[in-house]
Amino acid sequence: MKSSRGAEELRPSSVRKRESMLAAAQEQFLAHGYEAVTMDSIARASGVAKQTLYSHFGGKEALFLELVGSQTRAASERVLGEPPALPRDADARAVLAPILEQQLETVLSPGLLALRRLVIGLLPQFPDLARELHQHGPQRAMDALAEVLRRLDEAGALRIPDPATAASQLNWLVMGEPVNRAMLLGDDEALPGTDAATQVARALDVFLAAYGVDS
Amino acid sequence: MKSSRGAEELRPSSVRKRESMLAAAQEQFLAHGYEAVTMDSIARASGVAKQTLYSHFGGKEALFLELVGSQTRAASERVLGEPPALPRDADARAVLAPILEQQLETVLSPGLLALRRLVIGLLPQFPDLARELHQHGPQRAMDALAEVLRRLDEAGALRIPDPATAASQLNWLVMGEPVNRAMLLGDDEALPGTDAATQVARALDVFLAAYGVDS
Repeated sequence: MKSSRGAEELRPSSVRKRESMLAAAQEQFLAHGYEAVTMDSIARASGVAKQTLYSHFGGKEALFLELVGSQTRAASERVLGEPPALPRDADARAVLAPILEQQLETVLSPGLLALRRLVIGLLPQFPDLARELHQHGPQRAMDALAEVLRRLDEAGALRIPDPATAASQLNWLVMGEPVNRAMLLGDDEALPGTDAATQVARALDVFLAAYGVDS
Repeated sequence: MKSSRGAEELRPSSVRKRESMLAAAQEQFLAHGYEAVTMDSIARASGVAKQTLYSHFGGKEALFLELVGSQTRAASERVLGEPPALPRDADARAVLAPILEQQLETVLSPGLLALRRLVIGLLPQFPDLARELHQHGPQRAMDALAEVLRRLDEAGALRIPDPATAASQLNWLVMGEPVNRAMLLGDDEALPGTDAATQVARALDVFLAAYGVDS
């Protein structure tokens, strides 16, 4: 919230320029890997002077950190926003299914998967990058999910003694297999023979058996 | 099984030599990344002639593929072996907990985590490496788990309509959070404030609520 209000206060042309530099940098990093890309090659690809690039981002590592952070935050904002208001007779499956489906589709977007692979491969050299991705990506999604579960518990639609643990379990019931397959077998193998809605429905069968009020 | 019998038929000194070359290669790859390592640097590190290295492995990519395959198979063999024989009154939790705890501890061993990071980072250039790791690692573990679940169903200790789906769900209930944290936050952050036994027990609470015979 704070950062997007900050961005709106900038002059629109500066925002566009910054975004186009970040887009060019992302293309370079994903195509050639971190090591092979230089501030020179990013400046050339985005059609700005190298000094402009340095004055916006400070250096290659800081630029990459900003790229990972901005991509991950943008994805989180598409998915999360404010937790939904719950009616008194809220149905847990009806509340959770669309949130989880959108979350799964976002996590499986090719740009985010490619960034995630790059960042994992760079962990030994650049632990801060991966920490940034974790904090604004999976951790933020699970925190938001924990808040929804807490509200469903409050509304009497679920029994959730420990929202953080339950959110992690639900998250990985849904995301574990597709993300692992995407990491190791490629984007197209994330959900073989199934789709996001089925993957989420099966995960909710298990989760609601454990945490549902009828169980 | 077959491959380890094959290895025993080789002369012990050849086996030792091959293992020492693979160990030197692993150390090089993990310390410097795939690109920076050469057949020359591996030969120097393992104290053999470059021709010897080529005659054993063919080239750098084939050597790395063999390394990933041998490490992943060795880890699977430590964990899996034959599925346990089930008594008539088998208790699902008592059967599953030790299998899952050993599996989690193996998956979180620093050597395997480092190899996994390296292989994920290299997916765009070397998809076969990651496929090898997936096939002999997570996929093989889930296939073995599916067989245990099928036998528990047969023994009347669980109700498992689809063993492959149930095995994937149980696997990621246990491994999802720790593996994701290890990938992005480092080896030491895999299980913060908890341990393998607790992680497994919580996962089994959820799984058995869905698939137990009392549920």
